[in-house]
Amino acid sequence: MAYIEPRVLKGFRDFLPREELKRRSMIDTIEKSFRSFGFVPIDTPALEYADILLGKGGGETEKQIYRFTDQGGRDVAMRFDLTVPFARFTAEHRAGLALPFKRYHIAKVWRGENTQRGRYREFTQCDFDIVGSDSAAADFEILLLMQKTLDMLCKGITIRLNHRGLFNRFLASLDAGEKSAEILRQVDKLAKIGRDGVEEQLGQITGKEQSCKILDFISLGEGGGFDETLEKLKAAAGEGDDTRRLEELGSFMKDAGVEGNFTLDPSITRGLDYYTGVVYESFLDKMPGIGSVCSGGRYDNLTGLYSREQVPGVGSSIGLDRLQAALEELGPENDQCGYADAAVVCQEEGAAGKAQKAAEMIRGSGINCEVFLEEKKLTQQFVLAEKKGIPWVIIPDYQTGRFTLRNIASRENREGLDLEKVISHIIRSY
Amino acid sequence: MAYIEPRVLKGFRDFLPREELKRRSMIDTIEKSFRSFGFVPIDTPALEYADILLGKGGGETEKQIYRFTDQGGRDVAMRFDLTVPFARFTAEHRAGLALPFKRYHIAKVWRGENTQRGRYREFTQCDFDIVGSDSAAADFEILLLMQKTLDMLCKGITIRLNHRGLFNRFLASLDAGEKSAEILRQVDKLAKIGRDGVEEQLGQITGKEQSCKILDFISLGEGGGFDETLEKLKAAAGEGDDTRRLEELGSFMKDAGVEGNFTLDPSITRGLDYYTGVVYESFLDKMPGIGSVCSGGRYDNLTGLYSREQVPGVGSSIGLDRLQAALEELGPENDQCGYADAAVVCQEEGAAGKAQKAAEMIRGSGINCEVFLEEKKLTQQFVLAEKKGIPWVIIPDYQTGRFTLRNIASRENREGLDLEKVISHIIRSY
Repeated sequence: MAYIEPRVLKGFRDFLPREELKRRSMIDTIEKSFRSFGFVPIDTPALEYADILLGKGGGETEKQIYRFTDQGGRDVAMRFDLTVPFARFTAEHRAGLALPFKRYHIAKVWRGENTQRGRYREFTQCDFDIVGSDSAAADFEILLLMQKTLDMLCKGITIRLNHRGLFNRFLASLDAGEKSAEILRQVDKLAKIGRDGVEEQLGQITGKEQSCKILDFISLGEGGGFDETLEKLKAAAGEGDDTRRLEELGSFMKDAGVEGNFTLDPSITRGLDYYTGVVYESFLDKMPGIGSVCSGGRYDNLTGLYSREQVPGVGSSIGLDRLQAALEELGPENDQCGYADAAVVCQEEGAAGKAQKAAEMIRGSGINCEVFLEEKKLTQQFVLAEKKGIPWVIIPDYQTGRFTLRNIASRENREGLDLEKVISHIIRSY
Repeated sequence: MAYIEPRVLKGFRDFLPREELKRRSMIDTIEKSFRSFGFVPIDTPALEYADILLGKGGGETEKQIYRFTDQGGRDVAMRFDLTVPFARFTAEHRAGLALPFKRYHIAKVWRGENTQRGRYREFTQCDFDIVGSDSAAADFEILLLMQKTLDMLCKGITIRLNHRGLFNRFLASLDAGEKSAEILRQVDKLAKIGRDGVEEQLGQITGKEQSCKILDFISLGEGGGFDETLEKLKAAAGEGDDTRRLEELGSFMKDAGVEGNFTLDPSITRGLDYYTGVVYESFLDKMPGIGSVCSGGRYDNLTGLYSREQVPGVGSSIGLDRLQAALEELGPENDQCGYADAAVVCQEEGAAGKAQKAAEMIRGSGINCEVFLEEKKLTQQFVLAEKKGIPWVIIPDYQTGRFTLRNIASRENREGLDLEKVISHIIRSY
């Protein structure tokens, strides 16, 4: 018989238990944090009408999107991000949503892009937004939620923020306002190609003199505190709605006692045309080179393609795959997920009912407890526990109702315990 | 400007927050139960090579599957179940998996089938299996895990089980073994079309006399306990590996003290050719008409398409969408998910920092606490809380550091509280 070779598509991957446990644990942490702020989950279809997803489309997106004709002759496509479906969702369900609406959406998206540099064609996005409010309070809440959530996932993250309006006013003062889109794209490369690279590219757009001024402006945040930088920026570009918004945010940060967690950085611009207000990125202090792990900003009109009504919003997105890869690189202490907390060994297959009964008592105390199903030498069962990252193994004696508890790491046994003692030993070890 | 009409494809749907909260809460419960038994999650790509998914394929699957040619000219398709990807996964990663391997997989699948009768083209499957063991201990563990998990989701569920081998031996004793596939398909319709309907259909296949005998046989479970039914079945079909396996299961149930939760029912056959050993279905006592909410069985060789190695297994699958719909119908007490536990009102937008500071203290005690962002009349903010299903509202006085706690349902206010009191009142209300 001819077998089909088991394989996955290029750019796609399986998640084996250890990786998937880690992913779920990250997602759990993120969801708990979102829910603690009253953000609620939604979900949308993986497949939508192509015109909905592509809008006036074209360009890069059109090349990357998985698009085909379905059995009913419809022109359909797989979602390539969670922003466009959220815009469609908001326009469609507007009447039933209590605005401001605070939602999150954690789901897979698909892009048939070049798979160089560890990019995947299937990856998870993790978006959170407040729509229907253009207040500074909404901007602040997203920033605070970012900070709290990232802090739960990993210590040592710096959030850098800026305001698009401020940069645009500064460019206008240089008579470079028309070229702002091009300039933004170059400035956005600062972390990637460095100051000299940006200066050269900018020079070709604006001339040498202006490119120096722009680079001086975006360097004003270096080393300074939030207020100090804000004063420098006001001196360079004058006051406006944008600096007043940044002042408000600075004052909210002080009131909430979180001012040390945010840096005002005029070099943060986010390349996308989409953003109109505050913009921000977040970096791991120990691995700045991997780029931003959570970014976003304020936008004017989410639903513009689908509805006349203006819906302003502010949001952010955690790069889950990138963050997980970084945490793994930072060390095993960030990456420990065993299959279970404990396992009951099998010395006789006919005792499976008794083994499950003991395990049920242990599970009742919140301990994840596997039952090994196959009669094997105890040493083999210890190896199996180790392979699965299970720290405790329980060896029952059903005749006496006593148990031996083995610590897999230290190889120590405690003998003659009743189930209560087994449970309390395991719980105390956390 | 022309707007694109916001709409989803036929057979697809959005999940709004209340529904999605309920779904997540069900999935959380299911995962906690799976994890408590040491089952671990995996994930596989939504998109695979079409030959992997279709195998020797053809028939219904081929008509329903979303299949297309990708940008690289590959023949690809969206997964239509989680069994086939798991078979491919197991064959591909066999060397790295510690057998017996206990995994679960909760994910969406896609079928372009006729959308009559509330069927969706995108739905969630929730599969759990033990592969690499053909022991009775594995059969029992799947049954026990089914029972424990369903019991957490909803009271009053009966699990009915049978053994395929027993039915096949009985058919052989009637010299009807050749027609067993056809007969199984008819018997599987018993719950749907009733005894008379099945008798008529069976009569056309086997003749009247045999159809009566078959119906008598599959009725042997009516009203009897596990052991009693098993004795009747042995009398009708003789003893064999199948009855010995059922005896073992009965004894495990007694040892674990769960025998009351399982009914031996020879009418349970599962239509699919796939199964070779125990088979089972589960029904809501209050809504038997909606059919089985969790079904499965034992199979001989999961990876047959992809590898020479035989991998036997036993598994089950929860019909999450069906179960959620049933729970909603059974009453609102099964369906309460608010956006948060509490909300801090906004009386002044400039106080957003202070409001978040108070909310952070509350969140620190495990209470999900939203901050309302817009200055509005208090009564309007109470209505908003009600709309979102938020039971408690907190009205701060930042000058005095005191808070009023309002119960939205009873409209009672408690005034002059410090934050500690606010927190303890809310916690005590659970």
